Parts: sequence; C-alpha cells; structure tokens
Amino acid sequence: MSEIKALLFDVFGTVVDWRTGIASSACDILKKYNKDIDFFEFADAWRIRYQPAMEEVRSGKRDFTILDILHHENLQEIKKIYGLTEMSTDDDHNLVKAWHRLPGWPDSSNGLKRLKKKFIIATQSNGNIALIVNMAKNSDLPWDMVLGAEVVKHYKPKPEAYTVACQMLGLKPNQCMMVAAHNNDLEAARLQGMRTAFVKRETEHGVNQSSDLKSESNWDYISNNFIDLADQLNCPKVT
Amino acid sequence: MSEIKALLFDVFGTVVDWRTGIASSACDILKKYNKDIDFFEFADAWRIRYQPAMEEVRSGKRDFTILDILHHENLQEIKKIYGLTEMSTDDDHNLVKAWHRLPGWPDSSNGLKRLKKKFIIATQSNGNIALIVNMAKNSDLPWDMVLGAEVVKHYKPKPEAYTVACQMLGLKPNQCMMVAAHNNDLEAARLQGMRTAFVKRETEHGVNQSSDLKSESNWDYISNNFIDLADQLNCPKVT
Repeated sequence: MSEIKALLFDVFGTVVDWRTGIASSACDILKKYNKDIDFFEFADAWRIRYQPAMEEVRSGKRDFTILDILHHENLQEIKKIYGLTEMSTDDDHNLVKAWHRLPGWPDSSNGLKRLKKKFIIATQSNGNIALIVNMAKNSDLPWDMVLGAEVVKHYKPKPEAYTVACQMLGLKPNQCMMVAAHNNDLEAARLQGMRTAFVKRETEHGVNQSSDLKSESNWDYISNNFIDLADQLNCPKVT
Repeated sequence: MSEIKALLFDVFGTVVDWRTGIASSACDILKKYNKDIDFFEFADAWRIRYQPAMEEVRSGKRDFTILDILHHENLQEIKKIYGLTEMSTDDDHNLVKAWHRLPGWPDSSNGLKRLKKKFIIATQSNGNIALIVNMAKNSDLPWDMVLGAEVVKHYKPKPEAYTVACQMLGLKPNQCMMVAAHNNDLEAARLQGMRTAFVKRETEHGVNQSSDLKSESNWDYISNNFIDLADQLNCPKVT
C-alpha cells in the first residue's frame, strides 16, 4: 500500500453532516414564517432531489451545471411543498448558501489534519468549487486541493469523475484512494482502478438510517471515522 | 477595501524562487554529465521559452496543454544547446519535476499563513494542478484552492484566466485581489475589475534584474513581501 499518494474524499455525508447543517440553517432562516415544519424532513426533501437533478447532466440532457444552481432550482420545488413561496430572495439565497456552511463530523477536521501529513488530501465531491472552499473555511477542513465536479466537469459516479481527478494530480488511479461513507461511490472508484476506504457514518440520514451502515465489500480500508483511518494508515499525530 | 474576500496569487517569481530552484536541481541532476554549464543560465534559457510555448495555446494554434508538457518540450531544445541529448529519461523526468519542488521565498509560507486567516488564498498561476499541489506540499504553501490555467482552461494574461477564476469562487472581480510581482499581470487583472497588490521580488531574475523592480502603477497595495502585505491588510499574526 506504500504507493498511495493521494486521498480523494466524498464530502456530503462523509466529511460533513449535511442533514443537521441544513435542518439547523432552515430552522434559523424559516422560523419567522411560522410554518409547522419538521426541519429534518425539510433537509431530506431537499436532498432527495439531488440525484435526479445531477442525472439530467450525467445523461447529457443538460449542459454541466454547478450544484449551487441545482440546489437553488430544487429549493423552488421544496418551497411549494412547505407553503414558503412568499420567502424573500435574501432568505432563498441564504438557504442555498447553507450548503457552504455545513459542519464537519466531530473527527473530520482533526482527522484530515493527520491524513494531510502523509498524503495529498483533495475533495472529489459533486459540490461546486465555491461551496467546497467556503465550507472548508467555515469548518476548518484543510484540503490541499478542491477537485470535484466543477473542476473535472463530470458528476460522480461517471467514470471520468474519478479518472480525470487522478490524472489532474499527475497520478495513476492506483496511487489514489477514494474515501467515502457510501458503498456505491467506492464501487465506482474501484472500477476505475482506485484504492478504496470506507468510513462509517451511521447517522448521515438520522437515527433510523438503513443504508451504508456497514461496508458491503472488501474495500482496502474499513474505518469508523477519520481518526481511525489515520491510525490505520500510520499517519503521525498532529502536535 | 473591506469587501475583498479572496487573494489570487501569481506563483512563479511571486511565491517561489524558480531561478534558484531550477539552477539547484539542474546542478544536482546534471553535474554527472561533466558539461561546463552555468546552471543559472540554464534556468534562464529554459524559462525564456515559457511565454512563446503558452502563446501557441493562447493564440488558438494549439489545444490547451498543461505546463508540465510545455516544460518537457522546451527541455528538449535546451538539451541540444547544452550538449545533453544523451541525458537519461529518468533525469529528463526528474528535471521537469524540479518545477514541482521550487522553494518559496523566505517570507512566503509564513506570510501566506497570515493572509489565509482573513482571506481565501488561491493560486492563479499558469502552472498545472499537479505542479502547484506538489509544490505546496514541498514548500508548505497553505492554499485554500488551486485555480490557475488547468482549472480555468486559459493561460494568463487572457481575460478569462482572471474572470473565470473569480466566478469559480462565487465572487465578483472586485471582491478578489490579484497578488503578483509582475506589473503586467496586475494590469491584466485590473482590466477585468480585480483589485491588485504588487509584491517586490527584486532577485527573481538574479542580482542584475532590470524588470519589475518597482510598482509601475497605483496598485491598491504595494508591498515588499508577504509579511508586509499581511501587515497592510491587518491580518492577525500566526500563533
């Protein structure tokens, strides 16, 4: 395994807790409208429109479009469901920007700092550049590089999303390891020759989560969090 | 000036001392060939082919090509001049990679760490992604983001090199400041509405340097190094 040079990270769910972050921002921004909203359900309803929106791009029906725009479009549908069509433009904008302010899991910042001591650490997320850069500033995520959909111009799990990312780092796929809490992301990465590390995130979808509760294949590494992964990869402690 | 959110940096000459770095690597790699080479002249001869190579891309004569490839091609010409056509493939590769190992100026790492506390700091260099990412790891340059030619798909000073970079950060040009040791880079950035900061690097081209010894316009900031710039921008000290 000594030839691994770079770790490429899925972000939503793997590095940050999008459900708590969106529910919390939605509560802050929307409470003044006095609607009876379960903000976790609100977050789920918004997130569930994520894959179909990207599929329009993946299938070639639509030109490459950054996630901020897809989030904004999907929010317009959610607003109708929750009776929020009168929401102000500022609040609309602020809610879309809530994805730029998502909090890391408790181990994310410290774990990444250790992993960074030994490897190039880069994002390979479907989030756009501004979203990931702002999130990194807000949540102290010390990326060496923000790759991902807007840079490689393909949404995961398209093969090019993985192969172009490795190529841009000047590395072969087997010198790069995909780190994700989602078995299907790792499967797509492995098909392109990348190494794989599963990170267990049992509450990404809340306490009743039913998917990705455990690794479903013999990934190269299987870990409970980023500290555990840093230990397994013999990364030095941060002083 | 409170609306500046991001600093975009030229890299070669502004952040790193390419001439000393290349001369030093060339000496290490080439001394065994027993040629009578002035390694600073060697560095200059290689670097002087940089602009014409990019001009092929800028003019549309050639598809976008990353700098590693242009460096490799230009090295083939230099090898002929210096009687090094028998150089091994490994040494050729290692020399091209010398650009990935360029040392920062003495103030670069510490200055950037201070600037990063207040602003998004990103590269906007003509260097390719792998080159800039590896250089950052080698020389402790704590970028939030590597933008630049390979990401925006335009070489400076094309207008799009500046405008697309700002747009990818989700910012307007006047929320971004170009930081460079070269007056022409700042002029091109200002034409696109960016703020500008000049950094004096009097020995980029050696002790007999004749260009860019001082600012040639009323740039928004004029500084002696990154520590001075961090002071002028009221960036907190790094503890």
